[in-house]
Formats: sequence, C-alpha cells, structure tokens
Amino acid sequence: MTQLNVAVVGAGYWGPNLARNFRASPHWRLHGICDLDTARARRVADEVGGVAVTERLGDVLADPTIDAIAIATPARTHHPIVMAALDAGKHVMVEKPLAEGLGLGREMVDRARERGLVLMTDHTYCYTPAVLKMQELIQEGFLGDILFVDSVRINLGLVQPDVDVFWDLAPHDLSIMDFVLPGGLDAVSVSAHGADPLGTGRSCVGYLAMPLRGGAIAHVHVNWLSPTKIRQMVIGGTRRTLVWDDLNPSQRVSLYDRGVDLEPATSAAARAARVSYRLGDTWSPALPEREALAEVVAEFAGAIVGERPARTDGLSGLRVLSVLDAATQSLGAAGAPHPMEVPVKSEVLA
Amino acid sequence: MTQLNVAVVGAGYWGPNLARNFRASPHWRLHGICDLDTARARRVADEVGGVAVTERLGDVLADPTIDAIAIATPARTHHPIVMAALDAGKHVMVEKPLAEGLGLGREMVDRARERGLVLMTDHTYCYTPAVLKMQELIQEGFLGDILFVDSVRINLGLVQPDVDVFWDLAPHDLSIMDFVLPGGLDAVSVSAHGADPLGTGRSCVGYLAMPLRGGAIAHVHVNWLSPTKIRQMVIGGTRRTLVWDDLNPSQRVSLYDRGVDLEPATSAAARAARVSYRLGDTWSPALPEREALAEVVAEFAGAIVGERPARTDGLSGLRVLSVLDAATQSLGAAGAPHPMEVPVKSEVLA
Amino acid sequence: MTQLNVAVVGAGYWGPNLARNFRASPHWRLHGICDLDTARARRVADEVGGVAVTERLGDVLADPTIDAIAIATPARTHHPIVMAALDAGKHVMVEKPLAEGLGLGREMVDRARERGLVLMTDHTYCYTPAVLKMQELIQEGFLGDILFVDSVRINLGLVQPDVDVFWDLAPHDLSIMDFVLPGGLDAVSVSAHGADPLGTGRSCVGYLAMPLRGGAIAHVHVNWLSPTKIRQMVIGGTRRTLVWDDLNPSQRVSLYDRGVDLEPATSAAARAARVSYRLGDTWSPALPEREALAEVVAEFAGAIVGERPARTDGLSGLRVLSVLDAATQSLGAAGAPHPMEVPVKSEVLA
Amino acid sequence: MTQLNVAVVGAGYWGPNLARNFRASPHWRLHGICDLDTARARRVADEVGGVAVTERLGDVLADPTIDAIAIATPARTHHPIVMAALDAGKHVMVEKPLAEGLGLGREMVDRARERGLVLMTDHTYCYTPAVLKMQELIQEGFLGDILFVDSVRINLGLVQPDVDVFWDLAPHDLSIMDFVLPGGLDAVSVSAHGADPLGTGRSCVGYLAMPLRGGAIAHVHVNWLSPTKIRQMVIGGTRRTLVWDDLNPSQRVSLYDRGVDLEPATSAAARAARVSYRLGDTWSPALPEREALAEVVAEFAGAIVGERPARTDGLSGLRVLSVLDAATQSLGAAGAPHPMEVPVKSEVLA
Repeated sequence: MTQLNVAVVGAGYWGPNLARNFRASPHWRLHGICDLDTARARRVADEVGGVAVTERLGDVLADPTIDAIAIATPARTHHPIVMAALDAGKHVMVEKPLAEGLGLGREMVDRARERGLVLMTDHTYCYTPAVLKMQELIQEGFLGDILFVDSVRINLGLVQPDVDVFWDLAPHDLSIMDFVLPGGLDAVSVSAHGADPLGTGRSCVGYLAMPLRGGAIAHVHVNWLSPTKIRQMVIGGTRRTLVWDDLNPSQRVSLYDRGVDLEPATSAAARAARVSYRLGDTWSPALPEREALAEVVAEFAGAIVGERPARTDGLSGLRVLSVLDAATQSLGAAGAPHPMEVPVKSEVLA
Repeated sequence: MTQLNVAVVGAGYWGPNLARNFRASPHWRLHGICDLDTARARRVADEVGGVAVTERLGDVLADPTIDAIAIATPARTHHPIVMAALDAGKHVMVEKPLAEGLGLGREMVDRARERGLVLMTDHTYCYTPAVLKMQELIQEGFLGDILFVDSVRINLGLVQPDVDVFWDLAPHDLSIMDFVLPGGLDAVSVSAHGADPLGTGRSCVGYLAMPLRGGAIAHVHVNWLSPTKIRQMVIGGTRRTLVWDDLNPSQRVSLYDRGVDLEPATSAAARAARVSYRLGDTWSPALPEREALAEVVAEFAGAIVGERPARTDGLSGLRVLSVLDAATQSLGAAGAPHPMEVPVKSEVLA
Repeated sequence: MTQLNVAVVGAGYWGPNLARNFRASPHWRLHGICDLDTARARRVADEVGGVAVTERLGDVLADPTIDAIAIATPARTHHPIVMAALDAGKHVMVEKPLAEGLGLGREMVDRARERGLVLMTDHTYCYTPAVLKMQELIQEGFLGDILFVDSVRINLGLVQPDVDVFWDLAPHDLSIMDFVLPGGLDAVSVSAHGADPLGTGRSCVGYLAMPLRGGAIAHVHVNWLSPTKIRQMVIGGTRRTLVWDDLNPSQRVSLYDRGVDLEPATSAAARAARVSYRLGDTWSPALPEREALAEVVAEFAGAIVGERPARTDGLSGLRVLSVLDAATQSLGAAGAPHPMEVPVKSEVLA
Repeated sequence: MTQLNVAVVGAGYWGPNLARNFRASPHWRLHGICDLDTARARRVADEVGGVAVTERLGDVLADPTIDAIAIATPARTHHPIVMAALDAGKHVMVEKPLAEGLGLGREMVDRARERGLVLMTDHTYCYTPAVLKMQELIQEGFLGDILFVDSVRINLGLVQPDVDVFWDLAPHDLSIMDFVLPGGLDAVSVSAHGADPLGTGRSCVGYLAMPLRGGAIAHVHVNWLSPTKIRQMVIGGTRRTLVWDDLNPSQRVSLYDRGVDLEPATSAAARAARVSYRLGDTWSPALPEREALAEVVAEFAGAIVGERPARTDGLSGLRVLSVLDAATQSLGAAGAPHPMEVPVKSEVLA
C-alpha cells in the first residue's frame, strides 16, 4: 500500500491522539509534529516512537514530500493555517469548529474546491461504531421518514473562557445530525434559548430548536450545570425509532419497532382519528469496539486517494458553523428564530 | 369535625376519582353526582356506596345545603358551569385547564374574588408526596437560587382530537413549576416550537422555552411520538440540584450536592475564571405513599374553612393558562418569543 | 361455546381474583362462592355482579351441575378439600403450594389420576406473557442447551408467621423453572442455605443450589431483608442467554446473542483452550398486555374439555413441593445437599 | 520524608502498574525491575523513566540498600520467592492469591512473623475509595449489626487455563468482605456449588454460601458465562443497608435507611409478630477519584515505617486462601459444607 505523508500541526490536547492514530495507520506515514512549543511537540514525537519536530509551519508547507496536514490548533488559528496549507497544495484535516466565523469557513471551503484538494472536518463522533451504524440504518430506510431528532448532552462542565455552551457542546450533536440524516441537517430556522444564571458572561444552559424542511423538527439541549450526565439522541421515524445512549456501553443503540401508525386520509381531522399504536420488538445491534479516530484517518486517506470528498468534508463543517452562527444571531434577538439559507450539499464537490 | 357538603359534576374519566376521594374524606360529605348521562352518574354513585344522582345542574346549584361543587366536565364547559356555581354562592374546584381561553379564565377568577368564594384548580400532581417535598425543600432554600428548570414528559400517546401536545401534557409541568418555584412560574416570554410531521393538524412534538425574571430559564419537552417513557424534571440551584424522576418508585426525588461554585468577582470574565466544581453527596428523601387526590380534597376543604386561597387557586390555573395561550401565540408566529405580562400573584387574594 | 360450571372455595386474598376471572371468561359460568365467613363471600359475590353464596362445602360438592372447583384457602386445608372434591367427581384447581407436605401432595395427584379428573396447580406466574414467551423460545431451541438458571427475588418483606422465606417466595421461581426448562426442574440434589439473623425462628434470607441432571445448575436467591427490589431470572444457553426482569415493564425479556463458543475437543484442557466469545445483538420481544389469571382459567377449561393434563398440573405442583421439602431437609442438615428422586414427569398422565 | 527502596519482581500484567505507582509515590524510591524476561523488564523500566533491570532475583535480595520487594509473578512462584525475600530480610508485598495452597500460605505468614517483617497481600480493591468508605461506615456502626452480605460478580469471561471461576473471581469478594466486616470474614463453614456445563474441566458458574459466626450469612455468586456484567455487593444491617454497585460511577455506594425493625421479645414467635418496616431516606456519599494502587503502596510504606501489620496483611491473604481451600473441598464433596477453623485474626501480629 502506498502511504501518504502527513504532518500534525498542534501538539496540545488533541494533537497527540492524531499523531498516535496516523502512526498506527497503514495508510499514513507520520512525517512530523509542528508546534510553536517545541518541547511539547517533542514529547508527542517521543510518545509515537520519534518523528521530526519543528516550530516553523513554513518549513512543513514548503516540504514537497508532505501530502497532507492535520490541524489541531485553537479555533481562531484555523483560517490562516488552512488557507496557507491549501495554497501550498496540501490536503487538510482540521478540528471542529471549522472556523471562528461563517465567512471565514466559506473561504476555506471555496479555496479547497478551487485547488481541488481535500478539506476534511474532524467530526470524530461521526466515526464511532454507534454513529456509523445509525447512519447506515437510517440511510437504508430502517426508520422510515424522520419525524423528530432530540439530542441531550448535559453534564457538570467547566465554564469555558472563550465560548458559550452552544459552541462548546452542540457541534457534536449538530455534526452527528448532519451525518446521519438523509438530507443532512436541513434546518428552516434556528431558535436559540440560553441562560447565564451565574452571570459568567455566556450561556451555560442552552436549547436549540430547528424545524427541518419537510415538517420534522430537530432539538438540542446542552448544559454545563447538570449534576447528572446524559448523552442521548432520539431519532423518531415513521417505521421505527432509534435511541442512542452513549453512556450505556452494553446497549448503546436501541431500535424500537414502536410508534404511531397513520392511515392515509384526506383531511387532517380524519388523519388524527386514524392514528393507532404499534408496540413491536426492541432490537439492539452488536457494535464493534473500535477507536473512532482510526476511522477518521482512514477516511482522510480514502478521500485523497479516491479523489472524492471526505464523509465529513469542509461543507459539513460549514453547515455546523451555519447553525452555530444562526444560534448566536437568535440569542442576540432574544430567541427569535433566525432563518437558514438552504445549505450547500456536499454533492456539489463530487 | 364539621363536614362540608359537595356535589361532583361530571361522571366521565375523572369524576369517579373525585367522588371516591370526597367519600373517603373526613372533611366532606358527598351529596351527589350530576351528569347529563344519568346511567353513568348512577354507576359512579353505586361504586361509592350510593348517593343521589341528577341530570339537572340547576337543582344542584339551587340546593342551599350544598357548599361546594367539583367540576370534571370537558374544558369547553368549565366557564359556564363555574360562573353559574359561583353566582349560586358555591365554592368551586375545577379540573385543568381552568378554561379554554385566557379571557374566560380571568372572568372566573374575578367572579370568585368578587363573591369571596374559593376557586381551586385541581392540579393533582402538585399534591403528590414528591412534588410537595420538592416545594418544601425549595421554599426553605435547600437548592439556593434557582438556575434552571428542565422538564421532559414524553411517551407514545394518542393524538388527541381537540388539543395539541402542549395543551395535553404541558399543564402538568407548568402547574408543578408554578407550584414549586419561590416566585411561581414567572416567565419573561414563551417560545413554543412544535412539529406535526404526521400531518395530523396539531403539534405532536413540542418544546417550550421560558426565560424567567432573574436570569434563570425554564424549559418543557412534551412528545406523543416517543417510544420510551420519560417523566423527569431537573431543578438546578446555586446550592444543590434536584432531579424528580416520576417513574423511579424507589428513588423519585434525588438531591445532588454537586454543582458549580462561583466566587464573587467584578467582571464576568473574572467570574468565569473562578468557576469551580463541587462534587458532594446525593440524598434521596423517603416519601410517604399517599394518594394525591386525597390531599386535593383536604386542601379544598381547608381553603373554604380557613377562608384562604387554595394552594392551587384560580390564579395558579390562570398562570398556567397564560403560558399555554402564549405558547399558542408563539406557535402561530413560527416560534417567535411571545412576551408575558407579569402574572397576578395569588397573594392578591389573600 | 359450552360453558363449564365452577365454584370458588375461599373468599380471602386470592379468591376475589379467581371469581372475577371465571366471571369474565367465555369458558366458564361462575356458580357461586363458598367460604365459612359468608359476609366475606357475599362481598366477593357482589363484586362480580351477584352469584350464590354458601358456607357449606358439602352442598357445593353434592351439586351435580358443578363441574369444577377452584380452591383458594390456606395451604393446610388444601389436602382435605381437594380429596373431597375429587371424590365428589369435581375437577380441581388449587393455589400453591399444592399441600403442606410431600406425602399429602402425592395422595392428591394419585387420587386425581385414579378418578380421571384434572388437578391443576395455579402457578399464575407461568401464564404471564413474559413467562409464556420464555417457555416458547426455550422449547423451540432458541437458547440452545441450558447451561445455568439464576433467579433472584428479593425485597423488603413481612416476616411471615408460619412459613420461612423459601416457602413464601421460592415457589414462584421453582414453578417458573419447572415450566420453562425442556425437561422441567430436574434437580440432582438441593442445598439450602438460610439465615435468621433477627432471631425470628425462620430463615429470612435464603439460597437454593440445585445441580441439574446434564451438568447445568439452577440457583434461587430469596430475601425478605433487602431494601432494593429485584425480580430477575437469567437463563444461560449455548446459543443465547435470556434475562427476565419482571420490574422493567418496557423490556421484560431480553435475549443476548452473546456467549462462550466452544469448539469440540477430545480433552477438557483442549476444550478450555478453545473457548471464545461471541458478542452479538440483543433483542427484546414485544409482549402483549394480558392478565395471567385469565389464561389460567382458560387453561383449566381447556384441560377439562380436552381431557389432558393442565400445563401446570398436579405433578408440577408436586415437583415444586419436592424441592421445597428437600430444601427443608437440607436446612435441617446445615446445608448438606439433599438428593432428589427423579421426579415423575407430567407425560405419565397423558 | 525518608524514602524506602523497593524492587518490583515480575514485569507481566500487573508489574507495570506496581512500578508506576511506586515511582509516583513520595514514600518510595523504585530501585529496579526483576524479570526472567529482561526485554519485558526493560520496557517497564523505560515507561517509568528508566530504572535498573535484572533477571537475577538473587542479586536483588543480596542488595542491602533494598528495603522491600513487591511480587507480581504467577501464583505458583509466590511461596519460594516470598520465603527467599523474607530470609534475606526484605519486607514483602505479594499479589493475590497469597499462595497456591493453605499450608504454603501459613509458612509464609509464620516466617514473616518470626523475622518481624511486613508481609502484605495486594488486595487492591480494598483500597478503592468505595471500599474504604464502606469499611469506615461499617466500623463506626452506621449499619448496625450485620445481617447478610450478598456479592455478585458476573460477566462474560475467558475460561482460565489453570483456575476455576472461584479462584479467578471470588478472591475479590472475599478480601473485601474480610476487610469491611467488623470481625473479618468469620465463616462457620463454606458450601461451594459449581457447574461446568461446557465440559471445560473446571467450574464456570459458582456459588459460595458461608454462614457467619453470630447468625449472619455471606454469599458470593461468580460467573464467567453471563452476558450482562454485574459487580454488586449488598450488606444488610439492623440499622441500614449498604449497596455497592461498582459499575455505577455516579452512585457507587448507596445507604438505605430502610429495613425491618424488631421489638425485643421473649420468644421467636413473638419476635416474628413484632417485625415492622422502616422506609427511610437513601444517601449516597461523594467519593474521591483516586487510584487504589497509590493507596496500596502508601499502606505498604506505612506498615513498614510504623512497624505494624498492613491493613491487608498476610493473615488476611491467608483467610481468603482458607475460604478458597474450603470451597475446593466442598466442591469435591458435591457441595457439602466444609467446616472452617476459627481464623487467626490480624491482631495477633500487632
């Protein structure tokens, strides 16, 4: 197998995980680690058995043997680093959120398209065995048409110094919804309701309501102040309903063949009268134990070699960014719904 | 003990429970059952050992020996029956919702006040041992200041012919919040987000976001399409957080001495930096096994004899109605927040 | 449909349930209630809409129009009443335990066989939708060969005045095991370990270990002193393992396609080395909501009309009695295993 | 703080954990790693930042600067290594089980006493925050007198090549019981019931029943064939009952102020009649997050410096061994109870 050459930029919290997974992957050769703090970079390099270390991004970008870079630096630095890397002809994988603002994110996506390079967002959660199974089941119609998506991600959490609870936690829920829903997260509008009851200057409790094109609704509850920890998503469909409970290792994904049946009828009143229950079996598929990040780096390689967009490409990062941006607008307008443009689908790139 | 004389009006779903509890109460003498369907009324009368039955409300109201009536008829009939009963000098207890519309509800509350009669809303849930304990703990400051209230009430449910999921389920959550919060459910505005993905003509999935005066937020999630059943309310406070899980009979109320501590600071940024965790004990108080409706009829008698408002008086019914009315307005405006007037507190009556 | 005529003997705790179900059954005509306490008998008769009441068992047995009697009197009275009823030519259903002693139980079973009459034990639990489904799945080989059965039935319970925790609770577990296992509860021996740490004169905590013919093991844990309530049975098989959790209404029966696979090998050591895991799906069948006692009375009628043994016939009651008797022997011998004779299978009667 | 010098013998599964914790401890200086496989020893040495490595145990024992050795080699080698170390004047910590047989274990304990050296068994579980809290609560009388102890440790597990399920799993439960019970695990006898339904040559499902001196009972259920994972211990007392659920990270230890109250009475029958319920609060103490092994190595140092027995000394290892030995005897006698001698209490050493 031909191996691609990659450098990891950023040796802080997430960089070591990237380095370890690139190192272990048959698709990649890990060329080196780049960080302004070279001592930190060296520690990461040592942990993976020793690779080159540099503090100069320019050297990395100028090296013609390097095919791709993976960026795990603070969000505000994503735009300049990604743009420089694309201009140097490198394929790019970048941590979430794609950028600090929607306009910057669009520039990155456009530049990658112009250069014909892969721009992948590292939505790691989408590559867990549970979410991959959810996507597969939904795509093959196992749930029928989607009626609602409800996600809860709450826990006692540190108040972040620079972001609110929406930007801290909701990207997980939004990227997963975008990944598993047949048409992506196609919201008509976003209403954000937040509270800052401790006076920290940012929302610590938040709710996102997103009516979807077609009549369904998506909703996200994020909370830093909950003493109990919940990470759960319910996806209701006309045929079955799926519950993902990320904290139940023995039964992460459950499928309920239960729901409401509706006979066709000409009027709404008649339809309401014809609703009936269906109480069927529950089924929980066995899921492999696999590290999501190993799938992420394999997908990055697959996109480059196959000359196709990654499953979580720049546009998916952009769609998540659009919702977060709309949420911020809605928050500023006391929760008034902020309309969403029709998001660009990934197919455009294909 | 002097007993009060009561007649139950309406022998359908809830009337038999009222009759049984009035019959068993030392405070009450059950005088009779009134229903247009006298066969149905007679069955209820037989079950409680035989009392008078009539189809003529006028006879009941004209009977000077009757002190009070309890109304369990359809919501659209509440206004005329309550007004007639008050005009006949009877104390009144009425099922939720108080009325079909806010204006009608106000008339009922005003009339009761003018006549100096008790008007009580049967918010049964508020009299369960769990909710009574919640109210007691919150009132004595056990939670500290309230930061957020999050309520979830979801289950596979029949699509109702005449009401949406908000009017069907949310009165429970709203009346409980109004009951346990120190200042009642004092919402600045109501945003309602609903979905009717089956095309039944009314919302089957719904979310209510209610910023509270003082910076906290209350939120309600109601859903007829969920294959799993959840009835849970989390009330976060500066000192402790309470979780009420109505479906866990062995541990319905849990108190977490866990949370976020905040040192005083002059700026928000400084405050954010001074947030820290507190991971303390969990405590679950023993709760008596008692039928809530027995407490309801005792409270109705207590209010009449004590010449005081009932704990869930007409105004509390009116406040719930205000939120439901605002929710309907918000739904009609695509989820835009509908402002709430400052609700009239029950103290006015006292 | 031809209806059979039945009288219920005993109007205490369980008799009213029998009366109500016979009354509602299309297979039966409820002839009357017999109890020494005629006031009590009359209350039961009234609740089912009025049937004859008597205090004289002799009259009931002498009535040629009565086909069958159902006995819900104290255990010590089962033997004389059942014998008299059989001698009078009546089919008999009797509450558990069949009799107070093994010898008395044998006489009852023998007498029924001699007379060609149905003798049914009311092992109600066996007719719940969950246990019927368990029996069906096991009989059709869904679990493969049975490896172990582990049952736990613990809760805070009143110390009974006349029986220990084994005789109070274990009949449920034993009758279910006897019902669902392909060869019945075929124990080689019974070891009973009990404790009476409060000095009440009888075991309040108890364990029954029962090696089964064929190498599997069955075990029962019963406890009156547990603050938590558990009612759970695990049945491990070579193909799948079943967990019955009677207190989880949304998922009472779960089937785990998980287990240990064993390649054939000539020696035990080789076998041990060839053990591997299988981590497959979990499946929880939908179960109908049905009252078990309605199935019980239908089965009683079916056995009489079909001239066949009931599914829980006198012999199944006798097998449960044998284990309880052996448990008492083992307890008296400080927990030494008490050997079991090969129990008589129900097929003998057929 | 004066540091003690320690060498770790055995660099297999557990050795690296010992090395890491000795290295991190302020009480210890990690001198080196000894293993016949020096490559393996060197890997462990590298992971802790580089210490000496040797394959010669004799060199370690001859080094006068070494105060203590920690042994993590296979159980069959414990006896010779421990005896040699004691004879060389070293304090010793050894993995469970203390030895392969009871006689060998006794020799080790006797030798340590003769030499005045610390012999500690590494019952790691006893040093978890949960078990330390359990011990503290029980010792201070929070549960009252102990009535029963019931432990379940089941999971899908590899069939071990050399030990049965009792020797593999029960040492955890037995060492914890010995640690937390006021008088240690003071069993009158041991009955072991095992099954080998797959024909692997050793028990894969097992039950241990142990009546305790004083009238209480202890029971252990271990199982390699369970598809669900349970690690739970219930300790019932006259005042309160404790439940330890090791797999519930948010509420590992719960204390139920629920139970059975018994008025004093002269006869057992009278006592039975005077039993009543108490349904009080539930309380779950906050537990620190701390690695148990750090506590283990601190305790080892504390025992040496304080010239006192370790909290889990050789005698506690010996008591666990006694029960396992008795279990093997009972298994060989088809489950007949095997009497236990009064075990030597640790106080003897003090």
